[in-house]
Amino acid sequence: MQQPGLALSRVRAAAPLVHNITNFVAMNPMANALLALGASPAMIHAREEAGEFAAIADALTVNIGTLSAQWLEAMAEAAAAAGAAGKPWVLDPVAAGATGFRSRAARRLLALKPTLVRGNASEILALAGDNTTAGRGVDAGDAVQHAEPAARALARETGAVVAVTGPVDLVTDGERILRIRNGHPLMPRVTALGCSLTGIAGAFLGAGCDAFDGTAAALAYYGVAGEIAASGAAGPGSFAVAFIDALAAVTPDTLDAAARIGTADA
Amino acid sequence: MQQPGLALSRVRAAAPLVHNITNFVAMNPMANALLALGASPAMIHAREEAGEFAAIADALTVNIGTLSAQWLEAMAEAAAAAGAAGKPWVLDPVAAGATGFRSRAARRLLALKPTLVRGNASEILALAGDNTTAGRGVDAGDAVQHAEPAARALARETGAVVAVTGPVDLVTDGERILRIRNGHPLMPRVTALGCSLTGIAGAFLGAGCDAFDGTAAALAYYGVAGEIAASGAAGPGSFAVAFIDALAAVTPDTLDAAARIGTADA
Amino acid sequence: MQQPGLALSRVRAAAPLVHNITNFVAMNPMANALLALGASPAMIHAREEAGEFAAIADALTVNIGTLSAQWLEAMAEAAAAAGAAGKPWVLDPVAAGATGFRSRAARRLLALKPTLVRGNASEILALAGDNTTAGRGVDAGDAVQHAEPAARALARETGAVVAVTGPVDLVTDGERILRIRNGHPLMPRVTALGCSLTGIAGAFLGAGCDAFDGTAAALAYYGVAGEIAASGAAGPGSFAVAFIDALAAVTPDTLDAAARIGTADA
Repeated sequence: MQQPGLALSRVRAAAPLVHNITNFVAMNPMANALLALGASPAMIHAREEAGEFAAIADALTVNIGTLSAQWLEAMAEAAAAAGAAGKPWVLDPVAAGATGFRSRAARRLLALKPTLVRGNASEILALAGDNTTAGRGVDAGDAVQHAEPAARALARETGAVVAVTGPVDLVTDGERILRIRNGHPLMPRVTALGCSLTGIAGAFLGAGCDAFDGTAAALAYYGVAGEIAASGAAGPGSFAVAFIDALAAVTPDTLDAAARIGTADA
Repeated sequence: MQQPGLALSRVRAAAPLVHNITNFVAMNPMANALLALGASPAMIHAREEAGEFAAIADALTVNIGTLSAQWLEAMAEAAAAAGAAGKPWVLDPVAAGATGFRSRAARRLLALKPTLVRGNASEILALAGDNTTAGRGVDAGDAVQHAEPAARALARETGAVVAVTGPVDLVTDGERILRIRNGHPLMPRVTALGCSLTGIAGAFLGAGCDAFDGTAAALAYYGVAGEIAASGAAGPGSFAVAFIDALAAVTPDTLDAAARIGTADA
Repeated sequence: MQQPGLALSRVRAAAPLVHNITNFVAMNPMANALLALGASPAMIHAREEAGEFAAIADALTVNIGTLSAQWLEAMAEAAAAAGAAGKPWVLDPVAAGATGFRSRAARRLLALKPTLVRGNASEILALAGDNTTAGRGVDAGDAVQHAEPAARALARETGAVVAVTGPVDLVTDGERILRIRNGHPLMPRVTALGCSLTGIAGAFLGAGCDAFDGTAAALAYYGVAGEIAASGAAGPGSFAVAFIDALAAVTPDTLDAAARIGTADA
């Protein structure tokens, strides 16, 4: 694949407007992550304007974290509008599988053809129809490795790129697979860091990056920022602050030097 | 009572899934506080799934901070489901007494038999039907001491353990009283720290701790973390960050050494 | 004008209760900013109580950031109640002009006679009916300087004081103009800092400060805190933390010494 630093340069130059319909926990840290990256976030979810705005923005991200029936309609309208306008959009199926409402919502949005689906292993297993998932809430109960066949099948079925994030991230378009070995164990100790990553991936796609390579670059960028932030952190609170600083500080050169993106299993 | 460190060990070992229906201000810091403690938070409030999820989770917390008519229905369904499933649940009657809508909501939820009610002095006075309360908004206008008879009466009337938090916290089951003298004046200078404490108490109960002793342990744990965080803080911003670090760093031994839980008035 | 430090002293002495109907991104940082200042924030948006509470509070702020049809009704009721009770209220027309829904909402609220309108240049241009605005989302695409005639016309038309914030802030009552040259380029890199400023301005008005002078004092106070916070910040994450510390630390004397409020264009 292309050097991830090139993708990061592209995002910084484009400063894409990213429209996010996300959960209440993630809204603030996601907006700050996008600003630190150099993108322009907008959080807009009313049915009266979600579709109109999705067509204006450079990318859309949809996250079902704190879902309601009303918001689901706005999500569907925004996703359809993004699709019609040829804008990339990302689906984050938070806690799919945990309740029937949530699983049905995720399947409905999936049918609207997201460019990228990003979830943890339990969510991707649930989306792919695997009922053996160990996920109960928003935290994954399954290993990324275990979700690889499901991710591949989901990508083939939907045409989306699928990213499964965890200690080692996986990106697949149904044929090719990339593994990203960046990140730090403090990352899942901060709430909404996965949700914010969905926004970051949206910014990479909104800047015109290729869905497969651009997603891998976004995951590496995020993980490298996590590694930098962890070096001086005293716990999850100071880590979260240093992480936003690192998202702003990581340069394309830093990213190219620190990214660990590979195709091999080893 | 049991050493509070034992309760903390129990929470860390169980990593309880805590379902929270809380206000928009508190969602993010509460999730981070629960992750720092070692619990697994989930914020789920749609009527379509709140009851279903409450039965799956280990504990439920309900906070009426940014209440709406729609959410109130989900809160009631979740509380009823938690009760039916034998799961502990905590009521946080934010600003009860400030408006009629809020007071009626709090009374309605109270009738669903929470395991624990946690509020500031003004809220507990309002819940107990005392109209002399000086509370106008979310900040207490009354001293904890002044709310002691109301707390005791409320506990007897409802069967719930009642916790009144402030400079010195009070926990009562209607008969016994414990006072917890941990904490720091910077704590009320950070928004939603009381709300987040409700989540922490939910985690202790969800891990199987006794409602009376476990609540006292949760309050001491929280206050000790506040004392540690304050030692290096330059103001409420850096305090809030250090507080999350401290919630993760406090060990059972630290807690046992620093907890100031007593039965005496002096 | 009066020394801004006098206005800050007045706010700290009054500790005004500020009722905010604001967006989901801003709720938490706005509440923390108000607490750091020394005010008492309350976030209340249900139609069942918004009007009742607005009459109790010392000031109201209304921000249309994450607008919905339902909330718009509560905003209108609260604004009408504040007006009827003689309480000052502030309108923050986030992303007015970006969608039709948003522009109509802003015009409707404007008709309810806010005491103060605070926006960025693109928003003020859109409110004043200028269709040449370059704003697409929440970030300004226009220079403050360019919005001066629109701000002046809007103030004359509505009777409100109008504040346009950016690198150099502008305050006008339609006749007089003040320019505030405090602040730091890191401020727009943190989400919701403009929204939080609306709350801070509400606190100054709620403490009884004059709308024109008090707004200028609030802007200078905010900008001075930004300058102090930036001095030790490693990026937008640590800046945001230091900013809350600085809001608490700035004294009236510090403010008087550092404020750069002027009437001249140079």
